[in-house]
Amino acid sequence: MNQHDLQSYLHERIPLSRAMAVEVRVAGPEGVTLYAPLEPNINHRDTVFGGSASAVAILAAWSAIYVRMRAETRAGRIVIRRSSMAYERPIVAGFAARAVAPDDVSWSKAMKSLDKGRPARMHVISTLECRGEPVGALDGEFVVLPVA
Amino acid sequence: MNQHDLQSYLHERIPLSRAMAVEVRVAGPEGVTLYAPLEPNINHRDTVFGGSASAVAILAAWSAIYVRMRAETRAGRIVIRRSSMAYERPIVAGFAARAVAPDDVSWSKAMKSLDKGRPARMHVISTLECRGEPVGALDGEFVVLPVA
Repeated sequence: MNQHDLQSYLHERIPLSRAMAVEVRVAGPEGVTLYAPLEPNINHRDTVFGGSASAVAILAAWSAIYVRMRAETRAGRIVIRRSSMAYERPIVAGFAARAVAPDDVSWSKAMKSLDKGRPARMHVISTLECRGEPVGALDGEFVVLPVA
Repeated sequence: MNQHDLQSYLHERIPLSRAMAVEVRVAGPEGVTLYAPLEPNINHRDTVFGGSASAVAILAAWSAIYVRMRAETRAGRIVIRRSSMAYERPIVAGFAARAVAPDDVSWSKAMKSLDKGRPARMHVISTLECRGEPVGALDGEFVVLPVA
């Protein structure tokens, strides 16, 4: 699954990603980078609405797990349980959200749970950047549920 | 500012609120209730995308502060600093987000800071409900900045 496949999938299955005009810039087992322009995500102060920032960050984190699972031809239902978002500064233009799948040790442990038919917990961090500067970060806690 | 004024304001100034088809059900100094239907917020599992759930929760929390400030004819820039969202169960249909402005003691303390030209910090909880059941909650940390 490359960036074009992921973008088509997101736009088709999660219509808000299309409303936010999310573009997939990078998609691979090593991680996912999304981009969203200012206009559809703007607020009354001409900066990015916090809800858009966190939604794009969540989408990047979810996608990082999804793409890695697809690369390993694994099945599972990825569910978000918690998210904590820090808004470090106003986002004054288009922004990127970059998320990396869990490191190999955490990933292997999670996949072992899944192989035994148990839910696999994992954390994924999404970092937000605008014009090359960090502007926020999301810590997402996900569970991958075995497919019955 | 009643629910119609708030809905017009949100749809005009924060276009994602229109893309999510957010309706304002209640808007008063005592709190704000928003509603969002499933369709524009759906995900690949036919439940509400977590990013939509958190965005509507953030919007409700922000609005609860905004409406109370307007009722008191106060000026200030309301900025989100952090948010923590718990997704308690899949949201299978339209959902409501209800947020209450801080209690009178916290509010008075925050407004005193603002009166002195200092930023006022506050927490606002948004609770999400679907078909009468709680499905999630957001704890938002905001700062109201004095208008220069």
